[in-house]
Amino acid sequence: MTETTHRTDVAIIGAGPVGLFAVFECGMLQLGCHVVDALDAPGGQCSALYPEKPIFDIPGYPRIQAAELVERLSEQAAPFRPVYHLGQRVDRLEPCRLSPPGAKPGEEPVDGWRLVTSKGTVIEAGAVIIAAGVGAFGPNRPPLQGIEAYEGRGEGQGVHYFIAKPESLRGERIVIAGGGDSALDWSILLAELADKLYVIHRRERFRGAPDSVAKLHALAEAGRLELVVPYQLDSLEGQDGKLEAVVVRDLDGGRRQLEADVLLPFFGLSMNLGPIAEWGLALDKHLIVVDPVSGATDRPGIYAVGDIATYPNKLKLILCGFSEAALAAHAIRRRLHPHEELHWEYSTTKGVPGA
Amino acid sequence: MTETTHRTDVAIIGAGPVGLFAVFECGMLQLGCHVVDALDAPGGQCSALYPEKPIFDIPGYPRIQAAELVERLSEQAAPFRPVYHLGQRVDRLEPCRLSPPGAKPGEEPVDGWRLVTSKGTVIEAGAVIIAAGVGAFGPNRPPLQGIEAYEGRGEGQGVHYFIAKPESLRGERIVIAGGGDSALDWSILLAELADKLYVIHRRERFRGAPDSVAKLHALAEAGRLELVVPYQLDSLEGQDGKLEAVVVRDLDGGRRQLEADVLLPFFGLSMNLGPIAEWGLALDKHLIVVDPVSGATDRPGIYAVGDIATYPNKLKLILCGFSEAALAAHAIRRRLHPHEELHWEYSTTKGVPGA
Repeated sequence: MTETTHRTDVAIIGAGPVGLFAVFECGMLQLGCHVVDALDAPGGQCSALYPEKPIFDIPGYPRIQAAELVERLSEQAAPFRPVYHLGQRVDRLEPCRLSPPGAKPGEEPVDGWRLVTSKGTVIEAGAVIIAAGVGAFGPNRPPLQGIEAYEGRGEGQGVHYFIAKPESLRGERIVIAGGGDSALDWSILLAELADKLYVIHRRERFRGAPDSVAKLHALAEAGRLELVVPYQLDSLEGQDGKLEAVVVRDLDGGRRQLEADVLLPFFGLSMNLGPIAEWGLALDKHLIVVDPVSGATDRPGIYAVGDIATYPNKLKLILCGFSEAALAAHAIRRRLHPHEELHWEYSTTKGVPGA
Repeated sequence: MTETTHRTDVAIIGAGPVGLFAVFECGMLQLGCHVVDALDAPGGQCSALYPEKPIFDIPGYPRIQAAELVERLSEQAAPFRPVYHLGQRVDRLEPCRLSPPGAKPGEEPVDGWRLVTSKGTVIEAGAVIIAAGVGAFGPNRPPLQGIEAYEGRGEGQGVHYFIAKPESLRGERIVIAGGGDSALDWSILLAELADKLYVIHRRERFRGAPDSVAKLHALAEAGRLELVVPYQLDSLEGQDGKLEAVVVRDLDGGRRQLEADVLLPFFGLSMNLGPIAEWGLALDKHLIVVDPVSGATDRPGIYAVGDIATYPNKLKLILCGFSEAALAAHAIRRRLHPHEELHWEYSTTKGVPGA
C-alpha cells in the first residue's frame, strides 16, 4: 500500500461526464480538483457501457457518440490540470481539519474531508463532489454453469456483456439474449454485421421502445436475424474456452442447439452504491438526497451531482448533471471563500487558461 | 393586422439558446411547440450581440462561437418541426379554455393560455415557457446631438453598438468608447484590424477582467492602439451621415478631435421586460420567480427558464438554462397528460425523429 497524501480544494468521486464537467466548473472558479474513479479511464458508463452509441440530447450536439463526448469533456477540463486517480475506489470518507487555502501562519484550520482509496491514496479536500453515477455497476450474469470460462476472451469470441467495438463482431455467429432496449438496439445494429444472428427472449413480447420492436420484427422477416422466442438460455458448449454453441430451452423443456461464436447476454445492470452507502449521507432509494440548487447533501462540505443525486422532479439526464455540477461548484466556492466577493464573469469575457 | 389563430401544446417565448433547447426537450416528450421572438432570427443575444465571440462553458464544447451554437441548437430542434413566429413581440398573455389534446367529443375543456403578438398572431397553448433572456434589450446610447444620423449605416462606417462581422472594420479608423469588458474585448480584437484605433474612457482605470486590462495596456505600449483617458465623448463631426471625426473632452473641458470612420460606444445594455412585466407573474428584481425543479411560475401553466427566471443560488449560465428547459418540459408533460404514465426512455434508446 502506497501512502501518498494529496491536498486539494475539491475531491471529485467519479470521472463520468458530470464529474469531468465539475472539474471545468470548479476550475473556472479557481478551485483545483483531484478526481477518483474505479474504472481505468475517464468516462464512466459512457466509456464502459456504450462508447459507440449515439446520444441525441446533449445540448448543441444533435448527435454525438458517448466516447466523443467524454473526449470533449476531458479536453474542456484539461486546462485546469485535474489530477486523476483511476482504477481505485474511494473506500473511506471521514472528516478532518485543514488549514484554509492560502492561510496565513496561525490561522485557524477549517473543516474538510479525507478520502482513502482502495489503493491507499489519501486525498484531503475542502469539499467533496460525489458524481458517482449509478455507483459501482456490473452486468447481471446469466446463471450458466462454466460461463466464466468463456468470459474475457478476445472481442470476437466468447461471452460479452459490453460491446466496445461492434466491428469486432463482423462475420461472427452471434446469440443475443434479453428483451429490453439494450438487446433490441444491439440486435438491430449487429444484424448488419453478423454472419448469423439469433435473438433469444423468454417471452414473445419485447419490452423496449415500440419503434425498435417494429424494426426487430422487420429484420426477422427479412431473414437478417432469427427470433428464438419464447426460449431461455440453458447451457454453453465449447472447448478450452472457445464457445461453439449456445443451448436454449422452451417452456416445456424442449431444447435447441444454436451454433455460435459469441453470446451477448443483456439482462440489465446491477447497481451498487458500495462504500458510499456507509458514509452516513441521507439516502432515498439508494440515491443521495441533495438540495436541488446547490447539490449540498446533509453533511456540510459534501455535494452530490448527476445520476447519484436525487431531489423532487429529478431527471437522470447528463445535461441536468452538467447544471448541477455548476451549481455545486459555485456553492463550494462560497463555502471555501466565504468572505470573498466573487468577481463573476462569463466565459466569453474571461476565457479559459491557454485559450 | 392578420388574425391567424394557432393551436399548440407549448408556446415558447424567446428563440435564444434556451428557448431552442426547450423545443427539443418538449419534442422528445411529444409536445409540439410554437416559438415567438422579437428578433428576426433565432439565437437571442448570442446572434444579436456577439455572434463571433467564443463561449468556453458549453459542456462538451471546449470553445464554440455563439452563432455556431445557435445553429447546432436549431438543427437539434428541427426534427420536431417547431413553428417560428419571428420579428414579433408577445404583447398579451391571457387565460383561455381549450379542448385537451386528443380530446374525445364532449370532453371538458382545460385551462390554457392565449398569446397575442405585436403582429396580431394568436397562439393558444396548453402551457407557456418564457425563455426571454433579459427581455427586450437595447444598447445605452451616448447623449450626442445628431447621433441618429450616423446610426444604421453600412457596417464599416458610422455608429455601431453591436458588431456582427469584425472583418467589416478592417482598415478603418475606429473610436471605441467605454471601460468595461465589451470595450476591452473589442479593443483587443480590433487592434489587429484597424488602421487606427482610439480607446476613450472617462477614467484612467478600466473595469474589466484583469487579464484583458493588461492586454490593452500592452497593445497601447506597442502602438497598436491609442488610449485617450480620462476623456469623454463630446460631439460628432461629419456630413450627410458620413462620420468624419469624434470630438472628445477631458475633465477640464479641453477638447481633442479624433479623425474616424467608425464610433463604437460600449456603454452597456438597457434591459426591459416589456409587456412580460404586466402579466401578473411574481417578480424579483425584474426576473420571474420560479420553482427551481420545474420552472413553474406562480401562474399555473406558465413556466420560465434561462436568464429571465430566478430562484435561490440561480446562475445565469446557458448550460443551466438547458437543464431548466428539460425540467420544465417534463413538468408540462405531467400537466398536460396527468393520467398518462410516461414510458420514459433515454435519447440513446429512443433516438429522435429521422435519426
